[in-house]
Amino acid sequence: MTIYKAPLDDQRFTLFDLLGAEAILTRLQGGAEHSRDLLDAVLEEAGKLSEQVLAPTNASGDAEGCHYDKATHAVTTPKGFKEAFKAFSEGGWAGLTAKEEFGGQALPNVIGTSTTELFQSGNLSWSLYPLLSEGACHAMELHGTEAQQHTYMKPIVEGRWTGTMCLTEPQAGSDLGLLKTRAEPNADGSYAISGTKIFISAGEHDMAENIVHLVLARLPDAPAGSRGISMFIVPKFKVDANGSLGERNQAYAGAIEHKMGLKGSATCVMNFDGAEGYLIGQPHKGLAAMFTMMNAARLSVGVQGLALAERAWQNSLNYARERLQGRALSGAKFPDKAADNLLVQPDVRRMLLTQRAFVEASRALLYYTALQTDIEARGTSEDERRHASELVAFLIPIAKGVVTELAQECTKEALQVYGGHGYIGENGMEQFVRDARIITLYEGTTGIQAADLLGRKILQLQGVGFKHFVAEIGAFCKTHAGDTKLAALIAPLAILAKEWGELTQSLAQRVQANPEELGAAAADYLWYSGYVTLAYFWARAVAAAEAGTQSEAFKQAKRDTAAFYFARLLPRTLMHKAAMVSGAGTIADIA
Amino acid sequence: MTIYKAPLDDQRFTLFDLLGAEAILTRLQGGAEHSRDLLDAVLEEAGKLSEQVLAPTNASGDAEGCHYDKATHAVTTPKGFKEAFKAFSEGGWAGLTAKEEFGGQALPNVIGTSTTELFQSGNLSWSLYPLLSEGACHAMELHGTEAQQHTYMKPIVEGRWTGTMCLTEPQAGSDLGLLKTRAEPNADGSYAISGTKIFISAGEHDMAENIVHLVLARLPDAPAGSRGISMFIVPKFKVDANGSLGERNQAYAGAIEHKMGLKGSATCVMNFDGAEGYLIGQPHKGLAAMFTMMNAARLSVGVQGLALAERAWQNSLNYARERLQGRALSGAKFPDKAADNLLVQPDVRRMLLTQRAFVEASRALLYYTALQTDIEARGTSEDERRHASELVAFLIPIAKGVVTELAQECTKEALQVYGGHGYIGENGMEQFVRDARIITLYEGTTGIQAADLLGRKILQLQGVGFKHFVAEIGAFCKTHAGDTKLAALIAPLAILAKEWGELTQSLAQRVQANPEELGAAAADYLWYSGYVTLAYFWARAVAAAEAGTQSEAFKQAKRDTAAFYFARLLPRTLMHKAAMVSGAGTIADIA
Repeated sequence: MTIYKAPLDDQRFTLFDLLGAEAILTRLQGGAEHSRDLLDAVLEEAGKLSEQVLAPTNASGDAEGCHYDKATHAVTTPKGFKEAFKAFSEGGWAGLTAKEEFGGQALPNVIGTSTTELFQSGNLSWSLYPLLSEGACHAMELHGTEAQQHTYMKPIVEGRWTGTMCLTEPQAGSDLGLLKTRAEPNADGSYAISGTKIFISAGEHDMAENIVHLVLARLPDAPAGSRGISMFIVPKFKVDANGSLGERNQAYAGAIEHKMGLKGSATCVMNFDGAEGYLIGQPHKGLAAMFTMMNAARLSVGVQGLALAERAWQNSLNYARERLQGRALSGAKFPDKAADNLLVQPDVRRMLLTQRAFVEASRALLYYTALQTDIEARGTSEDERRHASELVAFLIPIAKGVVTELAQECTKEALQVYGGHGYIGENGMEQFVRDARIITLYEGTTGIQAADLLGRKILQLQGVGFKHFVAEIGAFCKTHAGDTKLAALIAPLAILAKEWGELTQSLAQRVQANPEELGAAAADYLWYSGYVTLAYFWARAVAAAEAGTQSEAFKQAKRDTAAFYFARLLPRTLMHKAAMVSGAGTIADIA
Repeated sequence: MTIYKAPLDDQRFTLFDLLGAEAILTRLQGGAEHSRDLLDAVLEEAGKLSEQVLAPTNASGDAEGCHYDKATHAVTTPKGFKEAFKAFSEGGWAGLTAKEEFGGQALPNVIGTSTTELFQSGNLSWSLYPLLSEGACHAMELHGTEAQQHTYMKPIVEGRWTGTMCLTEPQAGSDLGLLKTRAEPNADGSYAISGTKIFISAGEHDMAENIVHLVLARLPDAPAGSRGISMFIVPKFKVDANGSLGERNQAYAGAIEHKMGLKGSATCVMNFDGAEGYLIGQPHKGLAAMFTMMNAARLSVGVQGLALAERAWQNSLNYARERLQGRALSGAKFPDKAADNLLVQPDVRRMLLTQRAFVEASRALLYYTALQTDIEARGTSEDERRHASELVAFLIPIAKGVVTELAQECTKEALQVYGGHGYIGENGMEQFVRDARIITLYEGTTGIQAADLLGRKILQLQGVGFKHFVAEIGAFCKTHAGDTKLAALIAPLAILAKEWGELTQSLAQRVQANPEELGAAAADYLWYSGYVTLAYFWARAVAAAEAGTQSEAFKQAKRDTAAFYFARLLPRTLMHKAAMVSGAGTIADIA
């Protein structure tokens, strides 16, 4: 059995001390009421729901898994999932960040991100059901007609229905241009959708009355490749004019996958067999429409990394404190006990501090990025919104790519602290490792994030977001130049920010000469960027802690973890720099 | 379904070209017949057994797992395991390296290591049953009386029985000094053993007629701590004077663990309830006796890492070749197909070359170490044997600690190449990740290996093995100083070998002043040592390939992978160096 306690102290510190979220949110359009008091209360309630309702279903949901009935095509979710969804819906969480006109509460994305972290820590498998719904709502909000929004989106915001995103096909994963699902026009303006989609999270389940699938498919006259894809709304049950459920649509789950982890999340093969669907957005513009939701989806997956790592870290710290084994190198620390606890071992503390350093800095990065999406959406000037939008575009591949990879390292280290006991199912640590293994794969593999960062955000968009971010780091370093409490952090950060710029510049030139250099450098560039980014947030964390009103123990933990990060994790930039400057020539062809 | 093909070409290259095993083995005591032809034939047969009998049971064994019957305390192994064990026994594999007087074939350890790799690649769970037997035989060979060897060891060598090692208790894992199992003398000279052992691999199963447990326990007059532990033989069925099985002993499996992986291996809770046992070796010297087997056991676990990584890498290469998705950055490479294969992506090749670089250099390191154990056992002079013994002692923590950690990285990358499909059970890649997760935990966690390397092998033993190894690298660099084909490898290797010595020296001084520095530096020192060691074996591989008779494609792959390793993986030494020189002060106390 694992423990979980909502990390409200660090969430609040990150939101209000480190990021100054209250001052920013309350001056945004429609943000007058988003005071710290309100947001604090929301966080606290989300923490309760996670601790009391979701967390207890995590291990049991993994053990039980989802079940598929071949005869009825029905999927049964694990015990407690339905009830949790009911509590979630009744608490209004499904519409937390949705607009009020759709029944939502219009709270900032950064609060949605913070509560999502809590829910995902509680039970990641379960949290995928509302997450996919949120994605579907985004799509309908941006691209749907008013009638579509009213009919298909509102019930999701109200927590009565859920949604899915149906992209992947067996032959079309990272390369969606290869997809084959067809959409034939019907006489009544609707379309008959036919094809098979795989890896459809929440594709079928027993938690809601209806499921709204957003399906990518090709119209008869579609151009080949990614420019010939359209998006369709395909409800599980057809809906009549007054919102009542009608006939069952020809959209059935054909199987569920047996996966390494995330076993409470139904990953469906979806068969569309002439299912009735409705075009949403422009013909052939479906992929572009789907990409407008990509930032939110990728940010959420980054948050999944944080959520798993946070819970794993809480448990490994707890275990290291309680497990008595061996003695301190410099003599017994608990001489009246049979052995010292694991915390006296520097190597165990190294594993714990590694987790803490990644968890807390990842939180800062993810919340920062979410806050920028609030500014992007509701900033008071065009300039401000564009600036935020460019920052978001730049940071998303880092927030998704690096945080999910680090979460794998963190859950691995958390298990390692347990020794052989970590390998035993009932101790719960191995579930975190298994659950975490998906997050570097879905919503774009790490390789895709790396290519997006270097290829699109740096080269195609000429690094506009990168320049904003480096300028921000520069300004921060300048502000704190004389601050002796931060001196050990500011000096190396300033040097790295400069080096980051130079490396970026020289890579850009190299790719101009040989496009293969992009693929050869992208992963190491992503990692390098990630470590520098987290260094910046560690420096900000210490600055915020020094200025804050937290306990001395809280502040000292921030100082210690920052020092650890700079001394022992940030030097990873050295190897990534060496690897990327070695060039495409060091990655030979393979026949 | 995964593929597996015995990597005989690379095994032979490593043994005979890189390590020159034939010349060494045939000049050792009793080695006259250990010609390349003989050893080649053994390898080929082992490869067939693995490919044809073991490999097909790997996925099914994982899916089925072991089953425990509470009523009878019996454990049923997965379908095919019994039959595989029969084939293994009938082929004489159980006694491959055992002395002829016990019915063994007295083949060199390096051949035992090579065949073990093959069996472990075929089915790691299955291979644990013979592995534990081998450990028990070692113990009896070194510490048993002639009668004990005849009664309990010979049937294991003949493949009729199996053995176990019963060390761990719930409160005593890394710290065996805490163990509580008691041994009360009986009137007949035997002992009544009482206590509970956990994590006992092969503790109970249905593959053999009898099981010989080697159990650590305390005599009534035993001093506290690790100096009061004795070792006992406790057979499942008692054995009469002529070797027939008698009464069932009070040694029962109380449960089997539900683990993350290795599901075909029965990990038992063993309850000894006044079970009849026989002292083996000296009273209170049981831990020391157990430690004499530690090198062999740890080397075998290192080989498990190699075995899993090899099979995972074969599959990911195969998948990257066959999966069509996306296009090359510099234009379509397969314009007549719907998409290019994954191999055209430099980032995919980076993941593949990472695996290959670690797999092949790990093989060289493990076989080299095994060859040293042959010299240690059968060298022609005391000096030669001592030199080899010191090298082995030094290399074991690297061979176990680093290779098992790298295997986790390799299996993770192998899965990553599959994208989302890697997460699906039926594709088999996730099993490798789950199976691999144990190997950094059992037979001493990575932290224990690191402490053994720096604390015992470097500091306590004054780095005697380290000095031999660095001298060997120095001699190799000198020999190849003028070799233009190796110039790009020799220069950085020589620099690193020198730096390794300096770092070791300065760490030793630091630890003198503050013992906590040992724990603070050990893990990074282990990693640093590992990467330099693998660099040495990559340089040797290229030297051997240039001089060898392999195909040009084989040689070019060695050159390419070595170049990749030096450019993109070896720079990891930079971060480990930075971390370890940062000192104990950067790992703060945690309350």
